[in-house]
Amino acid sequence: MTDHAERLTAAKQRVGAFSKSAGKTMQGFAAIAKAVAEPGEFSAAQKELIAVALSVSKGCEDCILYHLSAAKRLGATEAALVEALEVAVEMGGGPAVMYGSRALAAFRAL
Amino acid sequence: MTDHAERLTAAKQRVGAFSKSAGKTMQGFAAIAKAVAEPGEFSAAQKELIAVALSVSKGCEDCILYHLSAAKRLGATEAALVEALEVAVEMGGGPAVMYGSRALAAFRAL
Amino acid sequence: MTDHAERLTAAKQRVGAFSKSAGKTMQGFAAIAKAVAEPGEFSAAQKELIAVALSVSKGCEDCILYHLSAAKRLGATEAALVEALEVAVEMGGGPAVMYGSRALAAFRAL
Amino acid sequence: MTDHAERLTAAKQRVGAFSKSAGKTMQGFAAIAKAVAEPGEFSAAQKELIAVALSVSKGCEDCILYHLSAAKRLGATEAALVEALEVAVEMGGGPAVMYGSRALAAFRAL
Amino acid sequence: MTDHAERLTAAKQRVGAFSKSAGKTMQGFAAIAKAVAEPGEFSAAQKELIAVALSVSKGCEDCILYHLSAAKRLGATEAALVEALEVAVEMGGGPAVMYGSRALAAFRAL
Amino acid sequence: MTDHAERLTAAKQRVGAFSKSAGKTMQGFAAIAKAVAEPGEFSAAQKELIAVALSVSKGCEDCILYHLSAAKRLGATEAALVEALEVAVEMGGGPAVMYGSRALAAFRAL
Repeated sequence: MTDHAERLTAAKQRVGAFSKSAGKTMQGFAAIAKAVAEPGEFSAAQKELIAVALSVSKGCEDCILYHLSAAKRLGATEAALVEALEVAVEMGGGPAVMYGSRALAAFRAL
Repeated sequence: MTDHAERLTAAKQRVGAFSKSAGKTMQGFAAIAKAVAEPGEFSAAQKELIAVALSVSKGCEDCILYHLSAAKRLGATEAALVEALEVAVEMGGGPAVMYGSRALAAFRAL
Repeated sequence: MTDHAERLTAAKQRVGAFSKSAGKTMQGFAAIAKAVAEPGEFSAAQKELIAVALSVSKGCEDCILYHLSAAKRLGATEAALVEALEVAVEMGGGPAVMYGSRALAAFRAL
Repeated sequence: MTDHAERLTAAKQRVGAFSKSAGKTMQGFAAIAKAVAEPGEFSAAQKELIAVALSVSKGCEDCILYHLSAAKRLGATEAALVEALEVAVEMGGGPAVMYGSRALAAFRAL
Repeated sequence: MTDHAERLTAAKQRVGAFSKSAGKTMQGFAAIAKAVAEPGEFSAAQKELIAVALSVSKGCEDCILYHLSAAKRLGATEAALVEALEVAVEMGGGPAVMYGSRALAAFRAL
Repeated sequence: MTDHAERLTAAKQRVGAFSKSAGKTMQGFAAIAKAVAEPGEFSAAQKELIAVALSVSKGCEDCILYHLSAAKRLGATEAALVEALEVAVEMGGGPAVMYGSRALAAFRAL
């Protein structure tokens, strides 16, 4: 984890290239992402934090960076992030501690 | 999924029996659950819904029932549940559709 | 696994109910499913068998039934199913043996 | 979980049928299982309990039954089972509590 | 992901070292890999692409590199790879988008 | 994997920072870890090796390093590690081969 912002940029470039090849599939995925992004009972920032908790649960570091960055842009606080990560620890044990700790470090670095 | 309430009761009885044998470990787990249950930036009901989303992601039906039931008791609305499940679909694809659909059916039945 | 066809019907009904509540998200998911269904380098039946292998890998029984049924309707042979399941065993060990065996039984029963 | 022994028998029959269709793959898998079964630094019973912990981690109920049954036949004690399940809880959180509780109930019932 | 070929070589060396220590188990695994490699209803290249889809689903980067490399050596086209990755996205959502995008980048770089 | 000891130190620092923010949750987690660490039917070193097998199954490299390091400190032999990894291969196939091979390399390097 040398440079979180750089790694996020690289992930987005890879997804951009994949989207050119898998256009229709990725249009469907973008439609899901757009629907999820609409605020409702949860704010948009809270929804991104749920996505972070799920990313931690899956151990997907590119996903953690992507959704952390979105959450931060939408105004998510560190306190709210930590709460979402704590639920991930309840549901994931040790691996969630490890990836959750990575998520907190990334949130502070981004 | 004949009787959701019955299945939840059976799950709780099994966990009760396990807790007698694995006392110290389960005391630690209970401490995590208690910490997570405290309202903060997310309400207690919202945290249970995040736990439902994580349960859907893991495909753990006992977990879905347990956290759905807690969410409902804390006043979670169906609209908020659906939003949490939609994030799970974004992060989990087809299996999240299947377990999310089970979660919605259970929420209505419980 | 008393009645595979009945369980598949129940799963589809649950997904139908979820789709009413999570309309935009499920429209995006349907767009992905439609894009994936188009034959290309893999036939449509082969793609459904890849989805079965992934379902076995996730241990999602509703998914196994759903994609097995679609594969069968598209003319997938048992021999092709077994090959896809063998790749799942290579990549998943014991759990893939167990869910793969369930998939074969379901294919014969559906 | 009405009848654990019956469910185990059904799982073994399904695996038997799959093994006929996927002969060479399953011969390779059987060779792995045989190699793992040899006692070494861990006894054969202890190795089966590690397999139970991994089955709990994967949420694979057929696997839990299969390896629990083997562990019991090899003389594994309930105390040793509980210890293996506690490690699974450390590494898996809530879902491991749920599947671990199922494993303990099955051990007592088998 | 600085140098894909270098990382693949390192992975193969690690597996080689493990195979010396875990000889019988790895002979069983090699037998599975050999059985899976035989062309049938799916070509050998197609089977490697299914293995790539499963690797993406598991988020295992060493596996992605290993099976991508084998697929490429067997003549798999980029179009076929993308189709397999699209099924992975259908069955895995966001994390599959991220690992699938890594797989496409690796395929082009190898 | 340039420097295993350095990567382990970084992981522990991240967990330390997370523990400051998620105090009560991490106290509960520490209580679980303490309960699991007590020798019983399995020695403390054996329990750490079970945790390594579970870490391999989850594909969590920070977890692998953490529990490998603890196992080594408690006197675990390479032979016992390999046996635990072989069970992980039985229950996890190719990804377990890859992460197990990483675990063996790390054990030798630490």
